[in-house]
Amino acid sequence: MKKSVAIIGATGLAGQQFIPALQNHPWFEIKTLAASERSAGKTYIDALREPSGSVGWWAEGFPSPDVQNMTVINSDDFDPTTVDVVFTAAEVEKEGVSKREATQALEARFAQARPTISTTSAFRYEDDVPILIPGVNNAHAALVKQQSQRGWKGFVVPIPNCTTTGMAITLKPLYDAFGINVVIMTSLQALSGAGRRGGVLGLDILDNVIPYIVGEEEKVQRETQKILGAFDGTQITPADFKVSCTCTRVNVQDGHTEAVFVSLAKPASVEDVKRVMSEYGRDIADLPSAPPQMIVLHDDPFHPQPKRDRDIHDGMATVVGRVREDPALPNGIKYVLLSHNTKMGAAKGAVLVAELMVREGYI
Amino acid sequence: MKKSVAIIGATGLAGQQFIPALQNHPWFEIKTLAASERSAGKTYIDALREPSGSVGWWAEGFPSPDVQNMTVINSDDFDPTTVDVVFTAAEVEKEGVSKREATQALEARFAQARPTISTTSAFRYEDDVPILIPGVNNAHAALVKQQSQRGWKGFVVPIPNCTTTGMAITLKPLYDAFGINVVIMTSLQALSGAGRRGGVLGLDILDNVIPYIVGEEEKVQRETQKILGAFDGTQITPADFKVSCTCTRVNVQDGHTEAVFVSLAKPASVEDVKRVMSEYGRDIADLPSAPPQMIVLHDDPFHPQPKRDRDIHDGMATVVGRVREDPALPNGIKYVLLSHNTKMGAAKGAVLVAELMVREGYI
Amino acid sequence: MKKSVAIIGATGLAGQQFIPALQNHPWFEIKTLAASERSAGKTYIDALREPSGSVGWWAEGFPSPDVQNMTVINSDDFDPTTVDVVFTAAEVEKEGVSKREATQALEARFAQARPTISTTSAFRYEDDVPILIPGVNNAHAALVKQQSQRGWKGFVVPIPNCTTTGMAITLKPLYDAFGINVVIMTSLQALSGAGRRGGVLGLDILDNVIPYIVGEEEKVQRETQKILGAFDGTQITPADFKVSCTCTRVNVQDGHTEAVFVSLAKPASVEDVKRVMSEYGRDIADLPSAPPQMIVLHDDPFHPQPKRDRDIHDGMATVVGRVREDPALPNGIKYVLLSHNTKMGAAKGAVLVAELMVREGYI
Amino acid sequence: MKKSVAIIGATGLAGQQFIPALQNHPWFEIKTLAASERSAGKTYIDALREPSGSVGWWAEGFPSPDVQNMTVINSDDFDPTTVDVVFTAAEVEKEGVSKREATQALEARFAQARPTISTTSAFRYEDDVPILIPGVNNAHAALVKQQSQRGWKGFVVPIPNCTTTGMAITLKPLYDAFGINVVIMTSLQALSGAGRRGGVLGLDILDNVIPYIVGEEEKVQRETQKILGAFDGTQITPADFKVSCTCTRVNVQDGHTEAVFVSLAKPASVEDVKRVMSEYGRDIADLPSAPPQMIVLHDDPFHPQPKRDRDIHDGMATVVGRVREDPALPNGIKYVLLSHNTKMGAAKGAVLVAELMVREGYI
Repeated sequence: MKKSVAIIGATGLAGQQFIPALQNHPWFEIKTLAASERSAGKTYIDALREPSGSVGWWAEGFPSPDVQNMTVINSDDFDPTTVDVVFTAAEVEKEGVSKREATQALEARFAQARPTISTTSAFRYEDDVPILIPGVNNAHAALVKQQSQRGWKGFVVPIPNCTTTGMAITLKPLYDAFGINVVIMTSLQALSGAGRRGGVLGLDILDNVIPYIVGEEEKVQRETQKILGAFDGTQITPADFKVSCTCTRVNVQDGHTEAVFVSLAKPASVEDVKRVMSEYGRDIADLPSAPPQMIVLHDDPFHPQPKRDRDIHDGMATVVGRVREDPALPNGIKYVLLSHNTKMGAAKGAVLVAELMVREGYI
Repeated sequence: MKKSVAIIGATGLAGQQFIPALQNHPWFEIKTLAASERSAGKTYIDALREPSGSVGWWAEGFPSPDVQNMTVINSDDFDPTTVDVVFTAAEVEKEGVSKREATQALEARFAQARPTISTTSAFRYEDDVPILIPGVNNAHAALVKQQSQRGWKGFVVPIPNCTTTGMAITLKPLYDAFGINVVIMTSLQALSGAGRRGGVLGLDILDNVIPYIVGEEEKVQRETQKILGAFDGTQITPADFKVSCTCTRVNVQDGHTEAVFVSLAKPASVEDVKRVMSEYGRDIADLPSAPPQMIVLHDDPFHPQPKRDRDIHDGMATVVGRVREDPALPNGIKYVLLSHNTKMGAAKGAVLVAELMVREGYI
Repeated sequence: MKKSVAIIGATGLAGQQFIPALQNHPWFEIKTLAASERSAGKTYIDALREPSGSVGWWAEGFPSPDVQNMTVINSDDFDPTTVDVVFTAAEVEKEGVSKREATQALEARFAQARPTISTTSAFRYEDDVPILIPGVNNAHAALVKQQSQRGWKGFVVPIPNCTTTGMAITLKPLYDAFGINVVIMTSLQALSGAGRRGGVLGLDILDNVIPYIVGEEEKVQRETQKILGAFDGTQITPADFKVSCTCTRVNVQDGHTEAVFVSLAKPASVEDVKRVMSEYGRDIADLPSAPPQMIVLHDDPFHPQPKRDRDIHDGMATVVGRVREDPALPNGIKYVLLSHNTKMGAAKGAVLVAELMVREGYI
Repeated sequence: MKKSVAIIGATGLAGQQFIPALQNHPWFEIKTLAASERSAGKTYIDALREPSGSVGWWAEGFPSPDVQNMTVINSDDFDPTTVDVVFTAAEVEKEGVSKREATQALEARFAQARPTISTTSAFRYEDDVPILIPGVNNAHAALVKQQSQRGWKGFVVPIPNCTTTGMAITLKPLYDAFGINVVIMTSLQALSGAGRRGGVLGLDILDNVIPYIVGEEEKVQRETQKILGAFDGTQITPADFKVSCTCTRVNVQDGHTEAVFVSLAKPASVEDVKRVMSEYGRDIADLPSAPPQMIVLHDDPFHPQPKRDRDIHDGMATVVGRVREDPALPNGIKYVLLSHNTKMGAAKGAVLVAELMVREGYI
């Protein structure tokens, strides 16, 4: 029997993406859609309707008739004990408290009762909370046991920032095989990463690059170290290599491109690097949303390209090209990666986390 | 009295840009326009006309009536002794020899007789040829004296690749003040850098990033070391810091954006870095095409942006923003720069070189 | 002595454009900048600053230091008797009343005391209010005398919707010379026409066309007939030709392109049409903001192009190309026009109206 | 047993699209791939490889390993009797003859022996050649019998220009139900319509519209009248309504948008128009490549949008929105349509024609 799930923030850009990720899922079944007060009481399709009458649907495909006709409830009224798993993409704004505090309050209410998988950053930097990427740090899943000390019967697991995901995935096999001392990264990020509220105007990005994304660089630096950190059964010690990023926005719909420069701890040839990357990640092959290969390597130097490569393995692979020696760093290697920010980097990545937690017995 | 100049390759994208750079110039006067056989014998305006009848003019403004009516001659028939200075933007393709050899042959014919300023890479890596950026390595100009050993009465001076220009300009004050050990750079380059023949198709760059530009990374690495090298009066010793780049193409018309990470030899604060950059380059203030400031600093982290900043000081300034500490490199500093690839990085930059050579007595 | 002016809504996208249009104006001098309560009390430069610290300046050039340091006042507190002319770009939203009513209330308060030139649509369709395009319907200016019946000492004159402007300008010489029966038009409109609040997201316009702009088609149809209507000294009878439009949004920064198909009342050759267009509009040559030619004709069929032609005569000309016979309509003529929506179609067009009103003695 | 087919011009942008259209086809099997001399003798995948080593594959999906390993032959050496059907997308350039003559010569050589379906315009305007759109003018198929008078054992059937396709499909039900007097159309065409050789540069289309496409308007006008013409068993009399177009290029990858204004012969309400459109085209439902509906109607006025609607029914539907009364034309109706120019408008449309010819017994 399938496990029942709720999607919180189901009408937003990030929340919508849970619909195609969960419709027809072999293990999960959508039972509840929740959103803000404005949407409560409407059918899902009506809640998506904009003042103009246009349906604001931005994810892949389209909701099935069943989903269209589900009645959306107010997130504040949602009782998590009515489902088996909660997926949340809701960032809460409340007067008088920070966005993080308000969002933590919402997620804590769910986690008190049920396993909660979140695309938000609210709990990412808490000591008893893992940031999970299946195939990269499965062992960190056990950290959720610590959350029982909060008095919770469930737990919360956030996925990383979408810019962290592809980099952590590609660094992990290098870290395991050769060690890492320094990582320098410049990202060329897609528009969908900015969402719709407060999204980037066409006026601002046409014929342009925006060289700054608020808070992004700090997140990537911190999350990468935590995800690749050592876990002793009770706590994570962040990996001790150094990370520096410059994050920019370019005129691309989906797919974050990242130019990565790595100083390895031990020498490795370009062929060594390609080999460990292409062999990586086989321990999640049994999860329904897992790609056949976690890292897809291109030898054609004109790849990866966001438009042409982002949908490889339905947006769940990290696509790597231009692997070459770096002449400037000790044991230097450089490459370019592409990661689909609204698939592996968002809802579908969160569903993959839930699948891992089921397999590992936490759900 | 103004010095008379010829523009070789005057009908191409790069060559056209010499027209606005030289029309109404206080020191130079356009006397001759030369191009391939196909254009020879036509007026300039007719030579620009495409099969459709449309005038293929891609540079700023428009040629004056005088220039429009000049008769274009065949570059092979051009006698360099008829002018005082030769500007060339012509890359020559000839069966049986490499593009470099064919272009060298053309430029050598001019340099035998007259000072020749080139936007091509043909001579950039020759030992007796400086790559000049006025304000950065004026002293290297004297290297042209060595070229008399080739039996030349004139000389050739190339400008750097357009991606090198902005980076070398911003590194120079850091190098002088603090020393440099390592430079890591990712570029987000504009479409105009690819020219028109073999230019990037709209189909290929819409909603996309192209992560590779053939030969570009090697050029930037090598040229930066040469431009910042030490000159002992007879030869240049390349600067011994290390440079590594990843060069990408983005959907921007003009203006190369570069994310630069530098490991300095000595510690320097963000304020130190800003100060030496903003004070830099005052020894070319008397040249007509020089910008009032070589480096313009932005404190607003959302700048520099190609669309909004590329025309500062008419495309002759290098615009720098986001100067901050780099947490990953020893004495690390990182910043984002913007350089106008078809102005300071091309014809207008070449005219600035000619102005320097006049002032220094070489023309 | 220059006349003093106020700019209402001075911080918005439309209002900002009055700054470059009025800085250094030979007849007008900016005395007052007004905006919403949020900006009141701040210097203009500080009022432009966004939460990130970035200065939100979207118009051409940059405000002079004098303007930067002017203190912005609350539009509701602005006393119109303190200036000679009021320029307003403020659309008012107030609970309980329609946007039109709220904006009319604001503009009426100014018009009661002073000549008021507006870029909004609030008063455009009132019987005693002309929609002025200098050079097209100068005589309609006299309609403002009727506004004294409202008890106003001043008056209000709106400019047309930016999509109407270029079409009305090109139709007027045809209407005068040959008569018009039918006009069919499809517009390809620029992003800047949508403003910043509620502007088009990059996500939505990249690789896309939006085939609908709320309310636009009705405005264009109605305004064109009014502007070309007959004025008998007390009222305007709309021109009786028929107009039908489809208005679309394309991924262009500035400059509305319009494909126009006209059925003339009398036969006219392509040459006739070009002649009357190119000779048109000489009766405003003495106004400081008037372009040397109101209509610039291209014979090159690849023009007009927004990127290459929008800045002809500093955005004040309407650029026309592809004039040819229309095989489907009686006495059919078709052409493509380009009009700069944020220059002639907005603030600079409004300043041109004010210049006309000064010349005609109404200000 | 499946019929064997050859694809001529298989390496070009248009020819490649036959691969996904024919791989796994229930009735057809790819037997031969032919291209120019340059590709002959190479495997298909190697023939696609560009000088850089990059594989130039621009169509959907990717060739199957079988197809990748097929050896490409020279089109001039191809013997049409070796297959059952020839699909050709090759435009031939030969010195001394026009492109049309050279392409006719190639296609005639195939048609002499076998049924030949072409995406080129070479034979479109010949009296004994139908331009077929299955579902629109099936009866015209019988015109191919006339081609036996050329001494051909096979025949040639071209598909229309990609800009004609969607318009003819939407006009047909209107023509049948209400009659048509006048059609006025403005197109906003995608970049892929221009192909790769001579394709539109990124430089030229970024932030721009190109208001002219050589030869396009004449093709659309002429083809529409022929496709909707009356066929008496031996010849087609073009439909006698008038057509006028303005064809423009916009910055969109795939999908031509067209704003259509129609003067019907008899009055029809908006609901009538929607009804006849939505009911149209059921007589091809049994063809494997036919869409479930030929015309998909949108009530949301913000649709059709190329990015969001071009892939409906896998690019084989014509998507229509904004159906409304036209105030300017007698019995006027206007709407916006979207047609996928590289699917229904190209190779997949040609395969649909071949399917019809099989069903009707001509193949």
